Amino acid sequence: MYTSQTLLLIFAFISAAVTSTYGYSALQDARIIAQFRRDQELNHAKIARQLVHQANWASVGSISTNAIVENYPMVNIISVDDNDASGKSTGKIHFLLTDLDFTGPDWQRNNKVTFLFTDEQTLNCKNNNKDPMEPTCARIMISGQVRKISTSAADYKNALATFEKRHPAAINWMKAHHFYLCELDIQNIFVLDFYGGPHNVKSADYYSVQL
Amino acid sequence: MYTSQTLLLIFAFISAAVTSTYGYSALQDARIIAQFRRDQELNHAKIARQLVHQANWASVGSISTNAIVENYPMVNIISVDDNDASGKSTGKIHFLLTDLDFTGPDWQRNNKVTFLFTDEQTLNCKNNNKDPMEPTCARIMISGQVRKISTSAADYKNALATFEKRHPAAINWMKAHHFYLCELDIQNIFVLDFYGGPHNVKSADYYSVQL
Repeated sequence: MYTSQTLLLIFAFISAAVTSTYGYSALQDARIIAQFRRDQELNHAKIARQLVHQANWASVGSISTNAIVENYPMVNIISVDDNDASGKSTGKIHFLLTDLDFTGPDWQRNNKVTFLFTDEQTLNCKNNNKDPMEPTCARIMISGQVRKISTSAADYKNALATFEKRHPAAINWMKAHHFYLCELDIQNIFVLDFYGGPHNVKSADYYSVQL
Repeated sequence: MYTSQTLLLIFAFISAAVTSTYGYSALQDARIIAQFRRDQELNHAKIARQLVHQANWASVGSISTNAIVENYPMVNIISVDDNDASGKSTGKIHFLLTDLDFTGPDWQRNNKVTFLFTDEQTLNCKNNNKDPMEPTCARIMISGQVRKISTSAADYKNALATFEKRHPAAINWMKAHHFYLCELDIQNIFVLDFYGGPHNVKSADYYSVQL
């Protein structure tokens, strides 16, 4: 979120403030800096959660099994939902796949996928005069594994119901075309929300955010 | 665009019309069917051109070289432009990359990329009450190779100028961060614009469309 130069300035400012108020304390400085770093990480996690929650779809990359573009990265549009029964964000990314589409066969051969979410999906960047590729137009790349949710799992019915509430078209998808409900098992989250390069957010920090 | 059943019905209708007006002619039927097929293909090509032209960005898949997610499909948001100097669509997909971002290092190790464009990028599907994953929410996946345009190439200056006209932020990108101008060399185009599965569009048909 900040360049290392900016971070140094902020740390210097915090140190100066602490020095003038309480006198110099290396231990206190270290604690404040650790807290500052932690807050920054939580901000990135929060941005990730917000981008996921506001999105109805993601651009999903997989390694293609289609004979025409075999081993190319394929990118598909996949409808997503992270709501609980009351519409609150859980961070859990649910989606429906079918083996008749691109992503379905791909993940079953090579279970490595990446979900891209960008603030431009809702035109937030355009409406704030930000180019979609500017680092200030927040984006996240969540990589991980597709996990098919068993129809006998405890959370299956609720998860499907909340998905269909958000995506009523899915009621028809489930009637035919062999769609199945999945969740993304998160391995890595990259967050770009400002200049200075991407940030890694741990999935534990991502899930612990309260929106 | 149509299921084979629907196609058969249409062909039957055309045949019946031809029979009643001109009498039966197998040759004429074959010509009409060929023309019908050709028109359909051109419609898909036209939809591809329209989706590219209306978009300011694409979701770009590459094979990741990032140590944390090596060999995963990475998906990035990349600003694009297919305008000529007067703002008309050429179909040529121009974009700027930097090796400081994800896509830059990836294509140089494995030059296989896919650009996803969807009608939902402009909220056209949402505004017409279509779920973003419905086949009627048109999308295209264009796979191919990244080609860096030499700064001494004949079309370099014009291509960069039209890109910067559409993406004024790029003027700053070019001043630092080692961005370079590229074009997508198209290997394959998948078009999904209706029920019944994806269509392949040849790059020659794609480029020959006049928008």
